[in-house]
Amino acid sequence: MVTHTLQLLDGAYDITIASGLMQQCGTLLRTQFAPGLANGETCRIMVVSDGNVAAHYLKPVVDSLAAAGFEVHTHVVSPGEHSKSFAVLSAVVESMAEAHLTRTDLALALGGGIIGDLTGFAAGCYLRGIRFIQMPTSLLAAVDASVGGKTAVNLQHGKNLAGMFHQPSAVLCDPDALHTLSELCLADGAAEAIKTGILGDAELFAIYESQNSAERYEDIIAHSVAYKARIVMEDPTEHGVRKLLNLGHTAGHAIELASDFRISHGHAVAIGMAMMARAACKRRMLSAEDCKRILQTLKRNDLPTQSPYPAEHLAELAQLDKKAASTSITVILPCGIGHCVMEKMPLDALEALFADGMEETA
Amino acid sequence: MVTHTLQLLDGAYDITIASGLMQQCGTLLRTQFAPGLANGETCRIMVVSDGNVAAHYLKPVVDSLAAAGFEVHTHVVSPGEHSKSFAVLSAVVESMAEAHLTRTDLALALGGGIIGDLTGFAAGCYLRGIRFIQMPTSLLAAVDASVGGKTAVNLQHGKNLAGMFHQPSAVLCDPDALHTLSELCLADGAAEAIKTGILGDAELFAIYESQNSAERYEDIIAHSVAYKARIVMEDPTEHGVRKLLNLGHTAGHAIELASDFRISHGHAVAIGMAMMARAACKRRMLSAEDCKRILQTLKRNDLPTQSPYPAEHLAELAQLDKKAASTSITVILPCGIGHCVMEKMPLDALEALFADGMEETA
Repeated sequence: MVTHTLQLLDGAYDITIASGLMQQCGTLLRTQFAPGLANGETCRIMVVSDGNVAAHYLKPVVDSLAAAGFEVHTHVVSPGEHSKSFAVLSAVVESMAEAHLTRTDLALALGGGIIGDLTGFAAGCYLRGIRFIQMPTSLLAAVDASVGGKTAVNLQHGKNLAGMFHQPSAVLCDPDALHTLSELCLADGAAEAIKTGILGDAELFAIYESQNSAERYEDIIAHSVAYKARIVMEDPTEHGVRKLLNLGHTAGHAIELASDFRISHGHAVAIGMAMMARAACKRRMLSAEDCKRILQTLKRNDLPTQSPYPAEHLAELAQLDKKAASTSITVILPCGIGHCVMEKMPLDALEALFADGMEETA
Repeated sequence: MVTHTLQLLDGAYDITIASGLMQQCGTLLRTQFAPGLANGETCRIMVVSDGNVAAHYLKPVVDSLAAAGFEVHTHVVSPGEHSKSFAVLSAVVESMAEAHLTRTDLALALGGGIIGDLTGFAAGCYLRGIRFIQMPTSLLAAVDASVGGKTAVNLQHGKNLAGMFHQPSAVLCDPDALHTLSELCLADGAAEAIKTGILGDAELFAIYESQNSAERYEDIIAHSVAYKARIVMEDPTEHGVRKLLNLGHTAGHAIELASDFRISHGHAVAIGMAMMARAACKRRMLSAEDCKRILQTLKRNDLPTQSPYPAEHLAELAQLDKKAASTSITVILPCGIGHCVMEKMPLDALEALFADGMEETA
């Protein structure tokens, strides 16, 4: 069992990585968050999950919580991005009220990034904030979404346009949950882990460049979480260095939008990273050798590297994205494996950057 | 023009009270929040209002903002408590996205407490938080809702069960807006101002006890805001002394619920305060003389003092209310004009307290 403690300005929480956590979560959470259960006090917990995840893992988690004495409630939403909406958020929050959750009770997100974002937002606004636990069941959520306190729903006008910062009280990450993931989902997680490697962890990058990643999930998660935790601790509200985590995301979000979300987040970010690598190479900020390593490592892990949409269309969509301030935008460019820089540029320079990112120079 | 600066842990903002602010808000807001407008930069502002208020005051406010150079957008909702819902919140946030508001743009709540709560929540979650301005147009919002940063929508299971803390960047309070208020609305505001008087301002109480309040709105607002600002500064997140502001609210919320919101917030709180005065008198915490003064002052200002619902029913509803922790509840009891105490009691003692509050002993 590996535990990282994330110390933020407004408190601290633990990220625990261990096989078997789904069966042991009840005891663990009782000790940390509901010691009164031992004296017959009540602690309610609302477990939010989606249909796919629930079919595999809801029972062991609910059983473990109930055995520890929690009054367990569940709310299962349909799988997919469309559940990240105000309508579903409203239903989750109504469920919490119906179960009479008070400010001392808990929510638990059992699922991928969509469930984490939705449950975090619901817990953050119900009674103006109750505590919640993240139990990521996808590689992507484990390495990325469960750390940092960003919660969100989508609007008709774009992804993640409404939400709040609400830090989880704990993250419990059981790599056993990854066994039932599809190849596509694993590749999505690989994209974010490779991103972390490019940003600041050459050792993590090496796992995806030349090793069998399927045998290294605990290490991959531990490395990813440690890096993100460091960045989030330095900049909890994304006004500075945390923007680095958006490597590949400006183009990536635009690609997701253009595809009407048929291209998944991780795959879109992979294309976005490939584009930034090529653009950085053309600007002589990144060596041709390192650019090639980035592109090959993405391909080796079943990730795409070319945008099916023209630069002009993506630049237009990116301007609707929330990261766009009025007249300028900050993009992240790699300078080597383990080193990236932020560059603020006029919004109208974005199309040329994207166009450079589509030329196969490397 | 009277300006109070509210200094909180996470920043400061001004509450300005002056006649004519609706015509001058553009210049004022440009100076403070959008100096770039003078250099041709863009600053968007989404004015949210309801049909009733908009009919009277939307034009002067929009004209003033447009004249100052703001790119003005408006979103008008239908008047009434039912607009404080996730469905309407979602529509407001979509409007903000449609108008391409960025993190440097503004929202402005032009209306009573409902519009303030709704707009504050929308501004707090859109892009995970943009700045917003409160322009209260009801006495209740001016003396109470616009100070403190609480935002909310209602759920089927109760009022204000979802929301967040999001402090306004400024409060502009124009007493001219009160001229078009109904008697009922003015009485609602009077209830909260009288509450402040009982809690800690004998001078404010005296205005309602023996003077013509209609001639004293600027003073009433200034006194109320000064008291609430002091309490909120001491306890921004309502873990301590701020609970005092809930005087009359435990019973009051239950009465609102029982009446299905046909009894307004201020009227319900008036009944709640009368109940707490009687209960405190019976417990010999409050003199019969002061109890009588409280009841008579409420009546003198067209406010009710008797619950149409039995204690048992109210106690049941109060337990669904968000202020209720698992097994105990904190109620506020007056000890004199200008002095109240918090008392934590078992949830099951609430019915007896409410019953005492209904006996006409004074």
